[in-house]
Amino acid sequence: MPSKKQSISDFGEKELIKRLLKRSQNISFQSPFFDELTFKSLSDDAALLDFGENYLVATTDLLTQTTHFPREMSYQQMGKKIVTVNVSDLAAMGATALGIVVAMALPSNLSITDFDDLMDGILQACEQYNMALIGGDTNESEELTLSGTGIGIVPKNEVMMKSGAQEGDVVAVTGPLGLAAAGFKLLLADDGEIEGLNPNSKDKIIKNSLEPEARLEQGLKLAKSRAVTSATDITDGLLSEMGELIDSNKSSIGIIFHEELLPIPSEVHVVSGLLNEDPLEMVLTYGEDFELLVTIDDVRFNELKEEIGLYKIGSITTSGQIHMVNKEGKTKILIPRGYEHLKKM
Amino acid sequence: MPSKKQSISDFGEKELIKRLLKRSQNISFQSPFFDELTFKSLSDDAALLDFGENYLVATTDLLTQTTHFPREMSYQQMGKKIVTVNVSDLAAMGATALGIVVAMALPSNLSITDFDDLMDGILQACEQYNMALIGGDTNESEELTLSGTGIGIVPKNEVMMKSGAQEGDVVAVTGPLGLAAAGFKLLLADDGEIEGLNPNSKDKIIKNSLEPEARLEQGLKLAKSRAVTSATDITDGLLSEMGELIDSNKSSIGIIFHEELLPIPSEVHVVSGLLNEDPLEMVLTYGEDFELLVTIDDVRFNELKEEIGLYKIGSITTSGQIHMVNKEGKTKILIPRGYEHLKKM
Repeated sequence: MPSKKQSISDFGEKELIKRLLKRSQNISFQSPFFDELTFKSLSDDAALLDFGENYLVATTDLLTQTTHFPREMSYQQMGKKIVTVNVSDLAAMGATALGIVVAMALPSNLSITDFDDLMDGILQACEQYNMALIGGDTNESEELTLSGTGIGIVPKNEVMMKSGAQEGDVVAVTGPLGLAAAGFKLLLADDGEIEGLNPNSKDKIIKNSLEPEARLEQGLKLAKSRAVTSATDITDGLLSEMGELIDSNKSSIGIIFHEELLPIPSEVHVVSGLLNEDPLEMVLTYGEDFELLVTIDDVRFNELKEEIGLYKIGSITTSGQIHMVNKEGKTKILIPRGYEHLKKM
Repeated sequence: MPSKKQSISDFGEKELIKRLLKRSQNISFQSPFFDELTFKSLSDDAALLDFGENYLVATTDLLTQTTHFPREMSYQQMGKKIVTVNVSDLAAMGATALGIVVAMALPSNLSITDFDDLMDGILQACEQYNMALIGGDTNESEELTLSGTGIGIVPKNEVMMKSGAQEGDVVAVTGPLGLAAAGFKLLLADDGEIEGLNPNSKDKIIKNSLEPEARLEQGLKLAKSRAVTSATDITDGLLSEMGELIDSNKSSIGIIFHEELLPIPSEVHVVSGLLNEDPLEMVLTYGEDFELLVTIDDVRFNELKEEIGLYKIGSITTSGQIHMVNKEGKTKILIPRGYEHLKKM
């Protein structure tokens, strides 16, 4: 007989985190260091601590072997990824990455060569993002687990939040969509299914999904422009993040976007065709694309488009909903959803 | 045939972390926010980032169910502990705790009641230490894993490091030793072995080990006194931390301490007697006592002793070694060792 007790899989990741952080705000405390120590951004990609003219930005992400690391992922790629997922959250706030601490739970029989590879991945990613590995902790566990906390800094007048989009703003993304889904789906495909695919293309698509790069430089440029009204990364899925921009806004905003404006590389169509998958699902809900979703002042958009590399996909409305205009010109209402850990579908 | 490949268990936690952080220092990078962004304390309890007159302090600790949480530990106690272990590292640096981010890997069938209890433990501990829960991440894993990153702040002229002890300094601890070992050993004992123990005493000793408290207040007072020459917490074991104070010092210092000065509560002797355990092992190498080990200017010690609650156990020498004067007045050389995750003994 099944228990009637609710388990956390009835809630899903985002709801659990909100449950946790909301109760946290009821704690009152005083700090001798700040007149007002503010912890912002309950629903944002990272927490903000008030440090004079700047915010200190802190974010944490944990990756486990079973859930996050496909069998084909090298230890070096795992190390890179724990840095990249955290930097992506810093990038979404417009922060400069300062450092990261990485706590690891490792199987005791892990070879020292594999440990060194993991370490090389972490350090290479730190070098790439101009930040330092500033601390760590190792423990024993049957399942390899990596937990990173990224620390960054952003001037208060440049910080990008999820909440500021306004009617008429351009909705844009920083790069191609659906490539991560294509890569991960190729990893699971039978050889027979993808016979028609050029082996070089296959390797390239897979490598891209196993070694994503955070849009730190674009995040910084966007923040410096001060033209961005809201921003988030879309690693949990483009559609669910559109929902976050709507939910966190005090006004009743909506988003309308155009299917034909979505920057979908030909590889995504090739893979979806071979595997009989819906390319739109790969682009809108699968997640794992390390791009930023931003809303930008309409007048400033054209000037920034070239410099930063932005793809306009739509604009902000007052509908309170997400509308997609499909290739036939028909408008559909979409429900925000994406990949969420723990949540039963 | 056993493989000749070395595994990480041939190294042990501290060596792995040093391996990781040493390579990290070779990365050069520039920050637009600081003239010189220093990452100190390779061997300290936490990392220091240069923020003008203050250091920002960051530390991370990860706990897994199998290794760190006895069956008898409640979810609330697990939540308290992930905060406490991180705050203890901040306390050892003399830092004020600002906030913590907690990433969790949770079994999907965890009940929402247990999740709420875990959360209550985290929040209660945050309240106790006057800090905020500022972020989190939840993921799915078979083994419950909690990873915390504590963030604190300390004025540069107050920070306590492992490296500054000088000949003649008093060596002291902030509280009783061996109680944690007594509690954990009681949890593993058969009822028959501990028949003679008063049930109230048993419960009290066990509760103390399952719900330790970090010496944050003492750490802050010690830092403000500016009389402390070096400090660390002793959760990894008193003896191994004495070794750390010696190893991290540029001069060739040593430590001499007196067995009869060790603050060992009667309960520790009772438990060690019943279980036929060596009380000194429980005090010196078992670890898990959430006390601080500090070295203090000889002249200032008496004034601080009462105010902060310090127990002098010995003094700093130039021997390069750890000497213990036992109850018979004989001096022995001790090898620094303690509990280390991963390390095969």
